[in-house]
Amino acid sequence: MALGRDTTFTWYGHACVEVRTPGDKTILIDPWFGNPLSPKTADAVDRCDVLLVTHGHGDHLGEAVALGSRLKPAWPCIHEMSLWLARRLAGGGEAVIGMNKGGTVKVGDIGITMTGADHSAGDWNAPGEVPLYLGEPVGFVVELENGFRFYHAGDTAVFGDMRLIGELYRPELAFLPIGGHYTMGPREAALAVDKRAIHAAS
Amino acid sequence: MALGRDTTFTWYGHACVEVRTPGDKTILIDPWFGNPLSPKTADAVDRCDVLLVTHGHGDHLGEAVALGSRLKPAWPCIHEMSLWLARRLAGGGEAVIGMNKGGTVKVGDIGITMTGADHSAGDWNAPGEVPLYLGEPVGFVVELENGFRFYHAGDTAVFGDMRLIGELYRPELAFLPIGGHYTMGPREAALAVDKRAIHAAS
Amino acid sequence: MALGRDTTFTWYGHACVEVRTPGDKTILIDPWFGNPLSPKTADAVDRCDVLLVTHGHGDHLGEAVALGSRLKPAWPCIHEMSLWLARRLAGGGEAVIGMNKGGTVKVGDIGITMTGADHSAGDWNAPGEVPLYLGEPVGFVVELENGFRFYHAGDTAVFGDMRLIGELYRPELAFLPIGGHYTMGPREAALAVDKRAIHAAS
Repeated sequence: MALGRDTTFTWYGHACVEVRTPGDKTILIDPWFGNPLSPKTADAVDRCDVLLVTHGHGDHLGEAVALGSRLKPAWPCIHEMSLWLARRLAGGGEAVIGMNKGGTVKVGDIGITMTGADHSAGDWNAPGEVPLYLGEPVGFVVELENGFRFYHAGDTAVFGDMRLIGELYRPELAFLPIGGHYTMGPREAALAVDKRAIHAAS
Repeated sequence: MALGRDTTFTWYGHACVEVRTPGDKTILIDPWFGNPLSPKTADAVDRCDVLLVTHGHGDHLGEAVALGSRLKPAWPCIHEMSLWLARRLAGGGEAVIGMNKGGTVKVGDIGITMTGADHSAGDWNAPGEVPLYLGEPVGFVVELENGFRFYHAGDTAVFGDMRLIGELYRPELAFLPIGGHYTMGPREAALAVDKRAIHAAS
Repeated sequence: MALGRDTTFTWYGHACVEVRTPGDKTILIDPWFGNPLSPKTADAVDRCDVLLVTHGHGDHLGEAVALGSRLKPAWPCIHEMSLWLARRLAGGGEAVIGMNKGGTVKVGDIGITMTGADHSAGDWNAPGEVPLYLGEPVGFVVELENGFRFYHAGDTAVFGDMRLIGELYRPELAFLPIGGHYTMGPREAALAVDKRAIHAAS
């Protein structure tokens, strides 16, 4: 479908994407505003209705805990991340929605489907030699209020089941990583597109 | 193959399934008898020769540790779960069989093959902010004494390699999740069946 | 391409492989020299320019920390393992290269691509009931200085995306596990080869 001027996608560098939706909601994905390309800081963000974090690495979690505490967005995330957040978010994380891969939740008229990703999702940054284990890495297919669907892959290698994402959800726009060091590079991403691994439609 | 009256499958709600086998053994899978649909409690279970738990979430582990301690079934499970169980089961878990995806073990004349699943497998329920990390989520293909094979998918999104499960093991019966929130929903499960993702035979 | 006498592959049992490259470098993979088949000990190893460990189980990590501390090889590994190693390697692990699946790094003229694997990657061996979580299990495609490429699968079940490995990287040699208990067995490995899951070329 054609997108009108009521929808904007703004890339803030790295995996950080802001979406203003046809229903006048704001979705933030992987809100690491501290990345070198971002022209604004997390403190300057004043709207967030839906927050999505693909996995528990610092360059994707970014300032999500502070944003979530201050703006109290709905926050659909993988089960382990939801448990961990409940102890860290102001208010106890009552707007966190634990879910898992293959599932879909609705936030108002916006649909959020959690997909797989081929990456990892933890750290060893906690004091006292305790690992930070936040489940598995994921991507998201988001359906806006008017039916437009996009896919944010998070960090991932190319994987064959991107074809199932295309076939089941037919996203019309995809955000793919191409760093080539922590994720697939441009050649692998081209394969994903070329083989309709992502978009089986059209 | 046709199943005779010597084999029964009983669903106790959620992912909890009991199998009485042609060889008069009892297999319990994901024994969360505490789920609202279960007509009996874990305490009332008096037979269990083989125990299978697909992943380390409470609604699948259920009362497995208590059952395993009391009835001492053979318990094939993923490596990390086997290590964790060894310190928790009465008797030190000598009947626990650590294994991993793609492997097959025999318990008497019953074959247990561990398959992949697209989900997660941990928690943050332990005291002191230590994660419960129990490896990766799995499914199982079980071959009964008479050669009948079934597949219990555990919690999972639909994934393309279900086709390999079908091709390699040709299960004649499958238990699939369709909750649509923590797992795939009916539409995705239908795709799995429709494309013979699970059963390449016939 | 044909390999000359300037390249050798030596299998030391289990998943432990040593490669002498056309550029006179030594690559060690999954260096568990303590395995029963190994004719030499880790202490006797005196060359290692590149160290690769597929996942955090003891039979693959083996004596890697001691070898890495003593011989200071470049050590490309998954993010979580790199963080964990930084506190354990002599010198702080400055030669460790954190990366992730789908990414490629160069060590001199040798290319290292990290692939997925269908297994698990942790343990419960640390004191005090803290899990050892080392990210996700991986495999590696290595391109030698002359362009020859091989694939070391680590521990894994057969998976459909082996086909993408074949298609993208066209390895001419593959090391596959066939244990059948902690990994796939010979039958599953034959399927991988038969369907060109690994090598789409030729």
